[in-house]
Amino acid sequence: VPATAPDPSLRDNSDRELSYVRDLEARMADLLEGYRQRADSISASATPLVDAIATLVRGGKRMRAVLAWWGWQGAGGNPDDQRILDAGVALELFQAAALIHDDILDRSDTRRGAPSIHRRFEQHHRQSGWRQDPGHFGVSSAILTGDLCLSLSEEVFASAADASVNPVGARALFNEMRFEVMAGQYLDILDEVEVPGQDPAEALQRARTVLRFKSARYSAVHPLGLGGLLAGAGEDLLAHYQRFSSPLGEAFQLQDDLLGVFGNTVLTGKPAGDDLREGKRTELVAHALALLPAGQVAELESGLGDPGLDHDAVARLQGLLEDCGARARVERDVLELGDRSLDALAQAPMDDGAREGLGRLARRILRRDH
Amino acid sequence: VPATAPDPSLRDNSDRELSYVRDLEARMADLLEGYRQRADSISASATPLVDAIATLVRGGKRMRAVLAWWGWQGAGGNPDDQRILDAGVALELFQAAALIHDDILDRSDTRRGAPSIHRRFEQHHRQSGWRQDPGHFGVSSAILTGDLCLSLSEEVFASAADASVNPVGARALFNEMRFEVMAGQYLDILDEVEVPGQDPAEALQRARTVLRFKSARYSAVHPLGLGGLLAGAGEDLLAHYQRFSSPLGEAFQLQDDLLGVFGNTVLTGKPAGDDLREGKRTELVAHALALLPAGQVAELESGLGDPGLDHDAVARLQGLLEDCGARARVERDVLELGDRSLDALAQAPMDDGAREGLGRLARRILRRDH
Repeated sequence: VPATAPDPSLRDNSDRELSYVRDLEARMADLLEGYRQRADSISASATPLVDAIATLVRGGKRMRAVLAWWGWQGAGGNPDDQRILDAGVALELFQAAALIHDDILDRSDTRRGAPSIHRRFEQHHRQSGWRQDPGHFGVSSAILTGDLCLSLSEEVFASAADASVNPVGARALFNEMRFEVMAGQYLDILDEVEVPGQDPAEALQRARTVLRFKSARYSAVHPLGLGGLLAGAGEDLLAHYQRFSSPLGEAFQLQDDLLGVFGNTVLTGKPAGDDLREGKRTELVAHALALLPAGQVAELESGLGDPGLDHDAVARLQGLLEDCGARARVERDVLELGDRSLDALAQAPMDDGAREGLGRLARRILRRDH
Repeated sequence: VPATAPDPSLRDNSDRELSYVRDLEARMADLLEGYRQRADSISASATPLVDAIATLVRGGKRMRAVLAWWGWQGAGGNPDDQRILDAGVALELFQAAALIHDDILDRSDTRRGAPSIHRRFEQHHRQSGWRQDPGHFGVSSAILTGDLCLSLSEEVFASAADASVNPVGARALFNEMRFEVMAGQYLDILDEVEVPGQDPAEALQRARTVLRFKSARYSAVHPLGLGGLLAGAGEDLLAHYQRFSSPLGEAFQLQDDLLGVFGNTVLTGKPAGDDLREGKRTELVAHALALLPAGQVAELESGLGDPGLDHDAVARLQGLLEDCGARARVERDVLELGDRSLDALAQAPMDDGAREGLGRLARRILRRDH
């Protein structure tokens, strides 16, 4: 809890951020309405693809878009510029595309507190009394919805990038982000199925690679960098951005890993313990494998990835992860990474408005804002 | 069989086309090697995603790339230009991405005579003795491989478009193509599951919409138009292109529909009757529903979409489609569309080299080249 009086500019900054988010959502709704009409011009029956995207994107927290917006301002960009609005929409659509397919991979029934897209189409199939397998129809429709969302994210991003001072550089970074996320997701599912028994140091290394590429870089590093690049940021500023955003993104995902095991449904929109049922090989699990005695390692290994884990079994695995100190270790990492991130921000060469905005956002992400 | 002596320029044209295809394949292999290194820089374990794409694209017929190349030349483009090489690679990668996901939707075990990508990853899982469900791992990996391939196709296309005279127009057409294919695929799976009993005219209309958007436009109209646009073709030439390529693409897909029901495995790389097991609502089926008496309509309906159809059941459904005249009707449509396409080509304002090349390609697609 900050003991000092609030900075008078803070209120303005915070209001401007809210106003950006409002504009972003209006712009996204407009674009999606246009895409809906594009679908309708092919066939009225094709509009559910766009409707599914529109429903999903309504629920986002806009973290990536806001990071891009501050990155843009930190490099001297005008906060009301159309290009950073579109770049924000592109990041939100890209995230939605990743979530739609990720929920198929993870067999997740819910997303943002509502049914995941493949479950939504599956339910629609059942309710309509259609033929053949509802589950297969649901997955197939969600594959196509994700493909469309991925394509639209790129379409919107390219229009923002083309109008910017650095279209080629911005596009290259967007491409790098996509590539990394897809590779990271593959490493994630690979770690779930590969036979364990690696040494703990290797397990930790693999968990960190997944965390970095599947999440940290695309959740924080790339959005901030893209905002900066679009406004013409040079290498020095981008390096400062990265020193701030890289530990921030890692802390963000470590917190998400804790939530995936220890709850809480309100924050995640998903049932507690889902990451255990899916067999996610997070840093939390890697630490536990190093800290637990052999008998309990076997118990953890046998529970991980069992989709039938009930409430008691989840509670027992939670106890293992807690009692061996793995949870505390990850919580300590979150704190250290958060400190490193905020220290780097303090040293970054940018105007105080952007610094203050990014600091407030970082503290919100790090849950230090109360 | 042409009775006239071969045009001496034909041999040159044909050789130049072969040389373009060779260069295209070399360029695609180079680009994929670069992407493989990009994956390797994240983790050696991520390279199978790129390897899967590289294996799949080795088997293509390059129809779309060659159409783009002739479209480029018809608009005055230099046949050896790097940009049309890259545009061709982008079209091949886009097709590969569509096939990877389509094979999941259609539960296809084979593609281009080899296991489909999800089956390939599934087999690898089994052979490695990994944990959890091999089928789910296969589908998940193929979803990510298709996502990556879709992203790479756009990345390559953008680099070609950016260096062209009309980057915005070319990119818009590429976006339109993606949108149409995804919407068309959705309409296709929707038609498979929706309860039938529509009137025959509506069934035919729906089948034609799927044919057009899922296949004809992306197989012929857009590749040719993209090649033309990249070389600066004006509206008039593009309209001529479309009068040629639209019936060509429809004939191409109608032939594919016939192959999907009546064989042949050598041409398709897939077992005969697969379209019946998947319940594809093609124009062939729509005609049969209009032509057959009620009792046989019921028989056709009950067989369509039954994955367990054996050889005898397939033969019986083939007989229904044949005896009622549906097959002959589609064959006649193929001939008429082919004639319309070749007539339009004869009237298109372009130099004779490009016209001859497109004519030869069209006759190959229409199987009139022997």
